[in-house]
Amino acid sequence: MNYVSNRMLNYLEPQMYARFTILANQKGCVNLGQGFPNFPPPQFLREALSQEALTEQLQYTQTAGHPKLLNSASYFLEQRMGLKINIDKEIVVSSGAQSVLCCLMQGLLNPNDEVIVFDPAFDLYRPLIEFSGGKHIGVPIKPKVFNTKEMMQKRFQNGQFIYSDDDNWELDFQLIKKRIEYDKLAEILEKHPNIVVCEDAAYHHITFGNNQPFIYPRCISHPKLKDRSICVISAGKMFSATGLRVGFAIGNENIIKGMKAAQTYHIFCLNPVNQTATARCLDQTADGIYFDSIRQLYEQQATKLLKGLIESRLNLNYWVPSGGYFIVTDISNIEIPNKYFIQNDVKVTRDFAFAHYMINEFGVVCIPCSPYYENKETGQNLVRWAFCKTDETISEAINRLK
Amino acid sequence: MNYVSNRMLNYLEPQMYARFTILANQKGCVNLGQGFPNFPPPQFLREALSQEALTEQLQYTQTAGHPKLLNSASYFLEQRMGLKINIDKEIVVSSGAQSVLCCLMQGLLNPNDEVIVFDPAFDLYRPLIEFSGGKHIGVPIKPKVFNTKEMMQKRFQNGQFIYSDDDNWELDFQLIKKRIEYDKLAEILEKHPNIVVCEDAAYHHITFGNNQPFIYPRCISHPKLKDRSICVISAGKMFSATGLRVGFAIGNENIIKGMKAAQTYHIFCLNPVNQTATARCLDQTADGIYFDSIRQLYEQQATKLLKGLIESRLNLNYWVPSGGYFIVTDISNIEIPNKYFIQNDVKVTRDFAFAHYMINEFGVVCIPCSPYYENKETGQNLVRWAFCKTDETISEAINRLK
Ligand SMILES: Cc1ncc(COP(=O)(O)O)c(C=O)c1O
Ligand SMILES: Cc1ncc(COP(=O)(O)O)c(C=O)c1O
Repeated sequence: MNYVSNRMLNYLEPQMYARFTILANQKGCVNLGQGFPNFPPPQFLREALSQEALTEQLQYTQTAGHPKLLNSASYFLEQRMGLKINIDKEIVVSSGAQSVLCCLMQGLLNPNDEVIVFDPAFDLYRPLIEFSGGKHIGVPIKPKVFNTKEMMQKRFQNGQFIYSDDDNWELDFQLIKKRIEYDKLAEILEKHPNIVVCEDAAYHHITFGNNQPFIYPRCISHPKLKDRSICVISAGKMFSATGLRVGFAIGNENIIKGMKAAQTYHIFCLNPVNQTATARCLDQTADGIYFDSIRQLYEQQATKLLKGLIESRLNLNYWVPSGGYFIVTDISNIEIPNKYFIQNDVKVTRDFAFAHYMINEFGVVCIPCSPYYENKETGQNLVRWAFCKTDETISEAINRLK
Repeated sequence: MNYVSNRMLNYLEPQMYARFTILANQKGCVNLGQGFPNFPPPQFLREALSQEALTEQLQYTQTAGHPKLLNSASYFLEQRMGLKINIDKEIVVSSGAQSVLCCLMQGLLNPNDEVIVFDPAFDLYRPLIEFSGGKHIGVPIKPKVFNTKEMMQKRFQNGQFIYSDDDNWELDFQLIKKRIEYDKLAEILEKHPNIVVCEDAAYHHITFGNNQPFIYPRCISHPKLKDRSICVISAGKMFSATGLRVGFAIGNENIIKGMKAAQTYHIFCLNPVNQTATARCLDQTADGIYFDSIRQLYEQQATKLLKGLIESRLNLNYWVPSGGYFIVTDISNIEIPNKYFIQNDVKVTRDFAFAHYMINEFGVVCIPCSPYYENKETGQNLVRWAFCKTDETISEAINRLK
């Protein structure tokens, strides 16, 4: 018997990340694939969890989040983002940013509602939209330039890499305008009061160059956008502990209201220990000092991996990251042996062929980017390399690519 | 702007439990409403959480559950239920039984699929079914007798209360057969290979009388039902810690497959600390000794509350619990002052009027049962009293009802 619902039939195989991680382990590869830090989370997180486990009440908490966490989040957001939120109405906590997004789609989408997704996009958006009856529309965006190896070499000065505003990604509503800023977005949206903006700020603490962590230009604090926006934050990403499974949405109360209702019937509430421990961590880091060091660490790792890739055997073109966990490269110059275009008897796109080529002949895992695009062709020459890894892992990957 | 999706419009108000808990606090009531223990969870749970927080990897875990937890659950289930499961295929762990049920509905239901729910039913089933496009069909069930006060008094012998098999609830498919046992259910279902059985065993460790904890007659181990059944277990209920938010589904691999797919796009994975701590607790209690004492404790509290209710001013009829957290009583003999039938300018059913009467004139919270029935009238003379409470709470409630 097939008992599985139609909506899930396309999603029964293990996800791309799980598949590549299994391959990495089987073949002894260096894993720059899935975006989880392979260094330990901060000790203060472990201690907060451990202490809260001994003292915190272990019964159901409020659906919208534990009061201690709501208070600490509100204080943190005010300190680091200059935002004042009403904790009764403008915030909801869920089991990771993933689960926050699930509440958003369930809470807001009616059948056939359209969702504009800027590609490349986190690949879990599309199924979440589909399961809620919505339609996703991928609008591809990119930075100004794809840097060649030579261009990249020039950007190293005295051993330092120069991050630039030209690396920022531009919204490019092909069908509407050629270039668009946040003000432009606000202007266009003024004619469409029913459109909601969801800013997935999972990596808002990791920015390079002139982008200010937490307060880079953003919708949630834009005067004309904020009343129709929410922003999604991942405590797991902030504290290098993707397993923490605590995330927030903050923003417009009418949006948050629908999300809280969805959460009630979805996970009901979160574990209070994880929440009060997160609250402690937010309190301890609201001065920003911890995040200065984390931001710096990620910039170092990004630079190290960029340098290694440039000096490797691979002739890639580069989108330089403006933040986050990943470097995206173009592989159109690479000759990939024919045999890698067939996997398990199925023809695969160039990015997948490249990823298998890397695993088998270099012993390094990177992630194909076509799943991040509505139109798979747009992503078929792109792959993603994670730099949220230890020095040793990045060095070993660089050695293998030499 | 209303941004909320249509599916959520009926669910924006705080849930019944939250509403009655707020009232309880405002009016200083004894709260026998929401089903959470108000005594501490076992110390070994706190210690397991605390230790795991210091050592366990804090990154993404497998969607289906942490390997340690899957192994411990499998060992526990074999020890206590005599079940052998394949941990790769026949189990999925989620964020509480609630979240397990959400995966079930998302993973299995196509639009207009029918779900037969035995009423009174956990009130979160119906919205979960609706959100997945399914239709719920409530089939009311009840035990053989509603005991009057006099019948109840006779069942106390030497201070002990005699629990009996006659208190068990009988499946009563009104439209199909008059009375039905598990074998009968299997026989009927044989003609319908597409029907799946979900046994919500949230309270399977708490049984009274002749019902064996964990191994009372159940679908998941019935030879003719097991290949189309799953069973839902709540670690939070098992360890008196509703905030733990760990639950399992075990059973047929084709059902579990759909549930794992749903979980991937829903919460992605659970916090590993909560999982490995649950694993430790299962290992420590697989011999059944801890659950013997817990079962005994709950039976004591049930008996104490039954006695108190019988000796109270209230002339109730009783369904005697065969296990679980709650006593259900019939209130048709009670005269409820007229004013309680209007709440916030809206006419309410008798059970709600009674609950408000109790809060205002007795200072005790119980929960109206009409929300547990498809047909609200069937439940309008029923209310539910939680006995998962300390001696002090139960004594205070009894005093107030005298
Ligand atoms: C863009 C983006 N949003 C959301 C998430 C999910 O975050 P969490 O781990 O808190 O669920 C991720 C994780 O990779 C992500 O990359
Ligand atoms: C019958 C039933 N099923 C499931 C649940 C949910 O359990 P959990 O707290 O593990 O989500 C409850 C909680 O009250 C329940 O009573």
